[in-house]
Amino acid sequence: MSNYHPLNEAEAIQIARTISGHFDKEGELVCREIGDGNLNLVFHVSQPSSGRSLIVKQALPYAKVVGESWPLSLDRARIESEALILQERLASGLVPKVYHADHELALTIMEDLSSHAIMRQGLIDGGVYPKFADDISDFLAKTLFFTSDLGMNQQEKKLLARSFANPDLCKITEDLIFDHPYTDADTNSFDPHLQADAERLWSDAELHLEVAILREKFLTHAQALLHGDLHTGSIFITPESTKVIDPEFAYFGPIGFDVGAVIANLLLHYASQEHWSADETARVERRQYLIKTIREIWVGFERKFRGLWDEHGTDRIAKTPGYKDLYLRNLLQDTIGYTGAKMVRRIVGLAHVADIDRIPDPAVRAKAQRLALAIGTNLIKRNRQLASIEQLIDIADSAAKA
Amino acid sequence: MSNYHPLNEAEAIQIARTISGHFDKEGELVCREIGDGNLNLVFHVSQPSSGRSLIVKQALPYAKVVGESWPLSLDRARIESEALILQERLASGLVPKVYHADHELALTIMEDLSSHAIMRQGLIDGGVYPKFADDISDFLAKTLFFTSDLGMNQQEKKLLARSFANPDLCKITEDLIFDHPYTDADTNSFDPHLQADAERLWSDAELHLEVAILREKFLTHAQALLHGDLHTGSIFITPESTKVIDPEFAYFGPIGFDVGAVIANLLLHYASQEHWSADETARVERRQYLIKTIREIWVGFERKFRGLWDEHGTDRIAKTPGYKDLYLRNLLQDTIGYTGAKMVRRIVGLAHVADIDRIPDPAVRAKAQRLALAIGTNLIKRNRQLASIEQLIDIADSAAKA
Repeated sequence: MSNYHPLNEAEAIQIARTISGHFDKEGELVCREIGDGNLNLVFHVSQPSSGRSLIVKQALPYAKVVGESWPLSLDRARIESEALILQERLASGLVPKVYHADHELALTIMEDLSSHAIMRQGLIDGGVYPKFADDISDFLAKTLFFTSDLGMNQQEKKLLARSFANPDLCKITEDLIFDHPYTDADTNSFDPHLQADAERLWSDAELHLEVAILREKFLTHAQALLHGDLHTGSIFITPESTKVIDPEFAYFGPIGFDVGAVIANLLLHYASQEHWSADETARVERRQYLIKTIREIWVGFERKFRGLWDEHGTDRIAKTPGYKDLYLRNLLQDTIGYTGAKMVRRIVGLAHVADIDRIPDPAVRAKAQRLALAIGTNLIKRNRQLASIEQLIDIADSAAKA
Repeated sequence: MSNYHPLNEAEAIQIARTISGHFDKEGELVCREIGDGNLNLVFHVSQPSSGRSLIVKQALPYAKVVGESWPLSLDRARIESEALILQERLASGLVPKVYHADHELALTIMEDLSSHAIMRQGLIDGGVYPKFADDISDFLAKTLFFTSDLGMNQQEKKLLARSFANPDLCKITEDLIFDHPYTDADTNSFDPHLQADAERLWSDAELHLEVAILREKFLTHAQALLHGDLHTGSIFITPESTKVIDPEFAYFGPIGFDVGAVIANLLLHYASQEHWSADETARVERRQYLIKTIREIWVGFERKFRGLWDEHGTDRIAKTPGYKDLYLRNLLQDTIGYTGAKMVRRIVGLAHVADIDRIPDPAVRAKAQRLALAIGTNLIKRNRQLASIEQLIDIADSAAKA
């Protein structure tokens, strides 16, 4: 990494110029740094004369979180660009196109998606995304099936898994999702009114056992190449288009972790309706929309995954009677467990979600937080017993009515 | 691998000379190639004047099996030497000492164990090994615990797993253990009198589902650094000493695969007593000895693994109530399943065991083969229901009495 240095805007423009055929040769380029500066520099480079633009994203050699800074491998930029290129090949049109990657500078030059909204904000703003369930279930089914032993050559998969070893980023997940929320860790962060709720999490032995099992699968179960951080802040969206971004946490792990991430973030938004819906009727309607989306995601994902299995199974063993059903049942259970784990950490752990944190009234916020915790802990505790997405939905709806 | 070429005996002597302090400077060195020539060259280099000796093992770039030859990565020599060095550090005295490794020449220079017998032959010769259960359970507990997420830093484990990606050798296992025995594959090889037995394996849907699950765990469940081929032909033994050799199949996989390999080969020998015991009384006694050894291996392994867990668990999550018990139950079930899979493949698959193949009388051989198949298929089918090593023992003893 000898040539590595953080770029300035002039350098970002210079590099953007080298992407052949993208910008007109004549027109001036304008650059703005639009990242939050915690993990990456993100330069938006545009050409007013042609109306064309692109993104130059560069990894920083550290992460800044709540004032603290810790070193973070620049190799994650390589992982991100390689994951994007692979995802584009497997699920075309559902990720930003990569124009160029420079591993030494830890940067990726890619499609500008400014025409899209960050889905988390879009949902907070009341957005409805009729194509989302179909798009994201497509993304999940294709990227996960075709990087699993079911959908690709098993020896090539081992080499691919080697190139996606991602200890630094996995460490963040292992600590912040599967460890800290269940003990009185320094990194935890929650409203004072949640002290008793947090203490219950810290002393719930039944919960701890299930979390230990989910964590073990995250550590050992190399099923497929995951996105690894698939929350609604990693999705750019419009009513007609879905683009999944930021796969820097990509590694080979349990498929349910990615599917659960999407569902968890929809359920967190579901919980946040205590505030964002104008009244009880609006709340019920909005929640029905979210539940319908969750159902469509799982049902669509399962249907597509089964279809790919039937059509593209790598070998005769994929056709073993009963194997696909058992696999999908385990996958649903994992999905349910990880959904729960991803909800709990957003309430008491280090990183929260705007859907809930931005609720101004502490009493209303507390209600949303406790609803998210109730759904999350229930899903974690019951994941190994459940056999249908309707049971997950029942758990959410029952908790909301309680 | 530009400098790679298969060594001749003179070159082996020349390289052996470079191991400082091993041989006297003056005395002549003598060399014999003692490998079977299928996968590796094995040079035994000795110095009659000092009585000292060592082994120079060099990988060949192909595997020869039943006349056919296929290319095989020389990288397995690196994997073997690195595994031996790591195993020596974790389970000192239970593997040959490595004096030198040259990855370019794909060779490892190591301790000569000519004073030991190959355990498979030792058992055929009626050997009794009172230290074996203790030694092998030590080897298993230490090498597996300390390379798992339970016993080593989880981020270092990911990097170690990357360096032990071993697609070529895993492919052999995936094909010959988890695939071919269950279909009419060209590589299968069995006595004509087993045709109907083989066909039953090929059409047994219940069996196929369990094998598919075991195979999936082999493909995806990166629990610990396995030896990967731990049969009684990979063990050098005397009544006082056990040395595990040949870890060229090492990779990160399910712990039960290694434990099951040991038990499977003891059970294959158990089945072979149809011939090797002089009479019914001798047979019962010999089988009791083998069963006692199997019980001591599992009980010793479990006790030691639990002890390491209590004393050296990496983090607080290892202490989660109930987690260790659940982990060990799953590990026993995996062990039982892999024991079965490793038995079946030795009867109908490509590679057999001398314990059974060398039985001269076809009727007696058939009885031993069918006993091995009965035990193996039963263990495979029932693995996910069992909860005690006594149940495995019951299955073996009941089949022997049937």
